[in-house]
Amino acid sequence: MSTLNHLPKFVEVVEVGPRDGLQNEANPVPVAVKVDLIDRLSAAGLPNVEAAAFVSPKWVPQMAGSSEVMAGIRRRPGTVYSALVPNMKGMEAALAAGVGEVVVFSAASEAFAQKNINCSIAESIERFRPVAEAAKSAGVKLRGSISVALGCPYQGAVEPSAVAEVVRRMADLGCDCIDIADTIGVGTPGAVQAVFEASAAAFPMDKLAGHFHDTYGQALANILAALQMGVASFHSSVAGLGGCPYAKGATGNVATEDVLYLLHGLGIDTGVNLRAVVEAGDFITRAINRPNNSRAGKALLAKWAAEQGEPACAA
Amino acid sequence: MSTLNHLPKFVEVVEVGPRDGLQNEANPVPVAVKVDLIDRLSAAGLPNVEAAAFVSPKWVPQMAGSSEVMAGIRRRPGTVYSALVPNMKGMEAALAAGVGEVVVFSAASEAFAQKNINCSIAESIERFRPVAEAAKSAGVKLRGSISVALGCPYQGAVEPSAVAEVVRRMADLGCDCIDIADTIGVGTPGAVQAVFEASAAAFPMDKLAGHFHDTYGQALANILAALQMGVASFHSSVAGLGGCPYAKGATGNVATEDVLYLLHGLGIDTGVNLRAVVEAGDFITRAINRPNNSRAGKALLAKWAAEQGEPACAA
Repeated sequence: MSTLNHLPKFVEVVEVGPRDGLQNEANPVPVAVKVDLIDRLSAAGLPNVEAAAFVSPKWVPQMAGSSEVMAGIRRRPGTVYSALVPNMKGMEAALAAGVGEVVVFSAASEAFAQKNINCSIAESIERFRPVAEAAKSAGVKLRGSISVALGCPYQGAVEPSAVAEVVRRMADLGCDCIDIADTIGVGTPGAVQAVFEASAAAFPMDKLAGHFHDTYGQALANILAALQMGVASFHSSVAGLGGCPYAKGATGNVATEDVLYLLHGLGIDTGVNLRAVVEAGDFITRAINRPNNSRAGKALLAKWAAEQGEPACAA
Repeated sequence: MSTLNHLPKFVEVVEVGPRDGLQNEANPVPVAVKVDLIDRLSAAGLPNVEAAAFVSPKWVPQMAGSSEVMAGIRRRPGTVYSALVPNMKGMEAALAAGVGEVVVFSAASEAFAQKNINCSIAESIERFRPVAEAAKSAGVKLRGSISVALGCPYQGAVEPSAVAEVVRRMADLGCDCIDIADTIGVGTPGAVQAVFEASAAAFPMDKLAGHFHDTYGQALANILAALQMGVASFHSSVAGLGGCPYAKGATGNVATEDVLYLLHGLGIDTGVNLRAVVEAGDFITRAINRPNNSRAGKALLAKWAAEQGEPACAA
């Protein structure tokens, strides 16, 4: 008997390639290339494109030029342009740049918070209080992102109840939606369902999102498991942009093309044109000379090339 | 509410890398390397290793030396060594080589059968009647394999009822188990559940197996969907050996390491040692100088290298 009869009818795909993906590139990507990529992605119909991070270029040189990127894009009605902000200085720059959603972040493991944010989880969220208030005043959306929710490179296992506690704090901060991130891609479907079940006790399931890395190849199975719980928003990165900072050579973000292929195959509407996303993936991987990490993207590019009588040469 | 409470407790993982995987290699792989690979895979605890194909070397030069491979391996009690046989000549060679299971094959699309086997589906199965009888007489298992069950490169969509009809013919032939193969990797979970539901009307679900290619990245999601239907046998290829003959540069067989990571994460027993399979994948990809297409394999190799203080260099 089918177990897929009660999936969401519409799923929001949040494209994180231009920020989360390109942030892991060793060489900075020119502003013009980022603008071109973001415009291709919004034109494809993606409802949310994480376009920038207003962080100190001293810490994250890849994100220098975020204001220029935001000034250069062609804003498409129907697409929210989101940006990561670490503090009020970043928030002011983000508001000046006209972002539609700001992303604040914490972790589900104290070990990870101490190592990456230099404070406790609770402190890290409290520090965002002024940012949250500024977001409300300015009428921009506030998104909370919770790292290492399915496992931590320093601490190992993470309990669903620990994730739910961070969700509760993010909800208290006033977040409009909250991402559960498997930052190192170690989760499997049962663990994913347990984390979303626990988190949904603290925040509505339809405002939770899954951010899965494909490091162990599990991302689409995890998305399927989360869809069965009623989760209707997922993050992904065109061409799978962004490696895994915790395992050299390993895979990072799940590819948007693969997620769209899954959702459309399940009869779920996304409002996104898969072909346009595949072409955007081909564009950016050629522009920055990186392999295309989308399996659906590579297969479709090879298929289209064969149909055109061209030699298929997707790497 | 979890949708994963009624999965099989034990799943059989059928390793097809040495045959289905290496058959797609442009350069023939030496017998000694194949023997080493097969011995590593059986030592890892895999219950079934597709080790050879007794086909004309004129048509499939990669499979020359199948008798030598079977003579060279160290047979592990608990592992069935299976081999593809196209006809009685192959069957005689397979029996002489001491295979434990023979694999006969057809397709779910008439267009594919005509193009690849030069006859109708029904004829292709009837031609195997002497092979099936010889298998019964010799006391070796008979497996039936059905190609393009989720979509055909020539015909496009394939109806679940068409797959079920081929299952019925294979059952009538006397097959002990039957594989449903997504040869071009186009299936998504809803289609997979529909095909298994239709097929289970003709043959017991617990003797059906899923053979999924990861060409569009869907294989693990499809396995999860099939597990939810009660399917308890899956084919996979160590390091994802074997490209896609229908789309150059695209991904072929799902990687055994990724499947084991999924199943073990779900608490399902396989009897297989994941680490030993990852090491076998590292061995064969170095031996034949191919990229490792297992995401879990690459991630674990990078992790272990980092733990040893070595530079992580998984490609």
